[in-house]
Amino acid sequence: MRRYQALTAQLESLVRDGTLRVGDRAPSVRQMSREHGASPGTVAHAYELLQARGYLQPRARSGFFVSDAWRATDDEQRTSRPPRRATQPDVSQLVFQVLSAMRRRELVPFGSAFPGSDLFPLRQLARDLAFAASHLDPWSTVEDLPPGNLELRRQIARRYRLAGAQLTPEEIVITSGALEGLNLALQVTTRPNDIVLIESPAFYGCLQAIESQGRRALEVPTHPRLGIDVGEVARLLEQHDVRACWFMTSFQNPLGATMPDCERERLVRLLAARRIPLIEDNVYAELYFGRQRSRSAKLHDREGLVLDCGSFSKTLAPGYRVGWVAGGRFATELWQRKTMSSLATTIPAQAALARYLARGGYDRHLRGVRAQLCRRQRAFEAAMRRHFPPQMKWTRPEGGYLLWAELPPRVDAIELHRRALAQGISIAPGPIFSARQDFRHAIRLNYGHAFTAQSAAALSRLGAIIAAMSARPAWIPRPGPAREDPIPRRL
Amino acid sequence: MRRYQALTAQLESLVRDGTLRVGDRAPSVRQMSREHGASPGTVAHAYELLQARGYLQPRARSGFFVSDAWRATDDEQRTSRPPRRATQPDVSQLVFQVLSAMRRRELVPFGSAFPGSDLFPLRQLARDLAFAASHLDPWSTVEDLPPGNLELRRQIARRYRLAGAQLTPEEIVITSGALEGLNLALQVTTRPNDIVLIESPAFYGCLQAIESQGRRALEVPTHPRLGIDVGEVARLLEQHDVRACWFMTSFQNPLGATMPDCERERLVRLLAARRIPLIEDNVYAELYFGRQRSRSAKLHDREGLVLDCGSFSKTLAPGYRVGWVAGGRFATELWQRKTMSSLATTIPAQAALARYLARGGYDRHLRGVRAQLCRRQRAFEAAMRRHFPPQMKWTRPEGGYLLWAELPPRVDAIELHRRALAQGISIAPGPIFSARQDFRHAIRLNYGHAFTAQSAAALSRLGAIIAAMSARPAWIPRPGPAREDPIPRRL
Repeated sequence: MRRYQALTAQLESLVRDGTLRVGDRAPSVRQMSREHGASPGTVAHAYELLQARGYLQPRARSGFFVSDAWRATDDEQRTSRPPRRATQPDVSQLVFQVLSAMRRRELVPFGSAFPGSDLFPLRQLARDLAFAASHLDPWSTVEDLPPGNLELRRQIARRYRLAGAQLTPEEIVITSGALEGLNLALQVTTRPNDIVLIESPAFYGCLQAIESQGRRALEVPTHPRLGIDVGEVARLLEQHDVRACWFMTSFQNPLGATMPDCERERLVRLLAARRIPLIEDNVYAELYFGRQRSRSAKLHDREGLVLDCGSFSKTLAPGYRVGWVAGGRFATELWQRKTMSSLATTIPAQAALARYLARGGYDRHLRGVRAQLCRRQRAFEAAMRRHFPPQMKWTRPEGGYLLWAELPPRVDAIELHRRALAQGISIAPGPIFSARQDFRHAIRLNYGHAFTAQSAAALSRLGAIIAAMSARPAWIPRPGPAREDPIPRRL
Repeated sequence: MRRYQALTAQLESLVRDGTLRVGDRAPSVRQMSREHGASPGTVAHAYELLQARGYLQPRARSGFFVSDAWRATDDEQRTSRPPRRATQPDVSQLVFQVLSAMRRRELVPFGSAFPGSDLFPLRQLARDLAFAASHLDPWSTVEDLPPGNLELRRQIARRYRLAGAQLTPEEIVITSGALEGLNLALQVTTRPNDIVLIESPAFYGCLQAIESQGRRALEVPTHPRLGIDVGEVARLLEQHDVRACWFMTSFQNPLGATMPDCERERLVRLLAARRIPLIEDNVYAELYFGRQRSRSAKLHDREGLVLDCGSFSKTLAPGYRVGWVAGGRFATELWQRKTMSSLATTIPAQAALARYLARGGYDRHLRGVRAQLCRRQRAFEAAMRRHFPPQMKWTRPEGGYLLWAELPPRVDAIELHRRALAQGISIAPGPIFSARQDFRHAIRLNYGHAFTAQSAAALSRLGAIIAAMSARPAWIPRPGPAREDPIPRRL
């Protein structure tokens, strides 16, 4: 265990056992550094982690104070413990079964991967699309071939640069949604049978990409609120010939976890030292509820090893299928692969989004979406507290629109999915997020749709189904003294 | 050699050696059948081939007459003779070099893969796109996931059924252009290292797909006007463990060749007997100049083994990136693969095309495009005759907008591509159409743009470059008596 980890663990246990009480002022970084003989950097790192985990809370100009925010989640949901061996995922058919069953308009869409469409400026986009299509320069059929529409790439690069990343439009490759970008990123960084580190649980699209491309997945223990355990990543890199990582560092699907910035930076440095590419699925990053966006791993990337995959599908234009990869040193190979597999991304939509972004107003729109999603999460969670069995636990993500709920004992997620469907409610069962169809004790819920009386009623129905399933069923006899005659005697 | 082939060869040589003269009436099928002891079916098959090859010409209600149409092409350009071994194509980087060099707006686009954009109803499409986007049912983000927009699949299936194919919308999978469909088709029918039969020369997208998916290509001898030699396909199937075929039976890119219907049917039967899937790239099929469309291989498909890949990119909506596969028994696997690799095809464009097709008028539009392309071919060819060296030969396709021209001796296609570019003209050099970068003696030319004075001037310049290159260069000394002293003596 490294120094800052030891310090973090020590302070955590002081808070947990009550030695440090809520509201107590923590020693200053300088004081801790002197007392423990650790460098100020080490102490600052530990404090940053403790803050991210809810053990410390900074106050302006007064230092750090002990907090009990950790009780809300950390204490309740534990880091996953996947086996330490690489597997070829075998989950695609289950994913298709589950997703196909959800494709009914009348279902309450708690299992959906899409947020409510009322969040998006669809009429404005339609006007931009109409303009783009009717003013389409015939030459754009050639010019907007991969890497893609230059104005759109400029607008995307501009957003990265405003966030502090050093990159140019040349590094951006426009793709048919983030999923194509992620698949291309996996193709250019790995070969068949290569080992890829992924989260546990992971986005099913990641599992399917690894399965369909014949790679192997090695799952990293993942905390429901803080994301992957970087220390564990370091150990896995020692033991396995890892060729790439595929992580979602902000509002991870399905957990909603977000890695602390310091951990993100540490991850990038760890991987850079071994020249291992990091495929970052960043599609929810803009949907933060806090004051500012987390610093993307791309911002720490000095080696061009981070392939940052983004999309407008979750933030602006669902169904348009326009995404991108900030591809670092892989940019050329990415656009060549893209050319070979689907030629171009739809050209009118590229031009329409370039036009929308150039006009300005995307940030104002995003502020509105964030506020809405944050309100929807509060309403959704309040209803969960009202209607779900008290022993259930769930994450409270700081962004996005997906949360992860753990079911009471004896409630199987796949069976719950079936029963909920029969009552007109979709949910996303845990096993579709696992290479080994694990996580039968959990479900992913979508709180990104307008919270209505119908939503509340559906959550109440869902709670009732869960409660019924978790009750000891009448037909399982309580254990009693063994009888020689297994056949019931007539009464 | 089978009976009909023997009969065909016999009659061909009678025409070639002048025994049968142009305008002579050929014996009736019944008479030939009696005289040669062959079944009427066999004779009819031979006559069909002879007609396709330009040796016979039918006249209404008068039977067949000897023709010299064969001289125009058959006699001049020979069937390719690729090696009979499978290779992993190694051409992608050359293709990217050549295509990248062509992406300059100011070039005369003889090397382009796209026809002139003036052929397309872009304003009407823009209106349909605007309507579709502004009336987008939010639910379509889910509903139009693969296999895709139902109304669009219905419209496509309707066109197949009108042509005589028995298929339903369930078999149609909407893809991001034909190229994605072709790549998916290759993925679901083959595994790495599998052998795939292809044409020689072949569309570079086919070579790149095989290269990037790690399959092996086995090239089939291909006639510049009649397409692949089905007899040779039969022999290759005997000798190799072929797992799929990828052919373009109508207006093949780059040759412009079109397989006779009888050969197409024979091919489908041959493959069905061995349960080998046929991936048919049919993107130019609607652009015929004759009275009716060739019967697609799909029409002969009883086993669901033909994966017919089409697109609106060449006929209606370039850049929209909407294509499809009529996937037969592979339909489910195709849409699942599509879901995993790029989720959905852009949804507003799917809806816009469904709307365009439902309104009617696509056929009227196509008639206009065909007439235009046919005129452009005539004008282009007349200028080639005027400006190109007399020993050059080229194909006169019966549809599409691409022709294949063979260069005079000593003219290297790659070098010609370089010199033409320097003079503002793009051409597509033969080696990008070959797994082994063969065909250095040929180029593909695009006659699908409006034929203007600029086009004529460019063809004249191109002809001059070719003539200059084919002239014996001054610096190669003519062979003379050997001299002991290689150093020129002073004069």
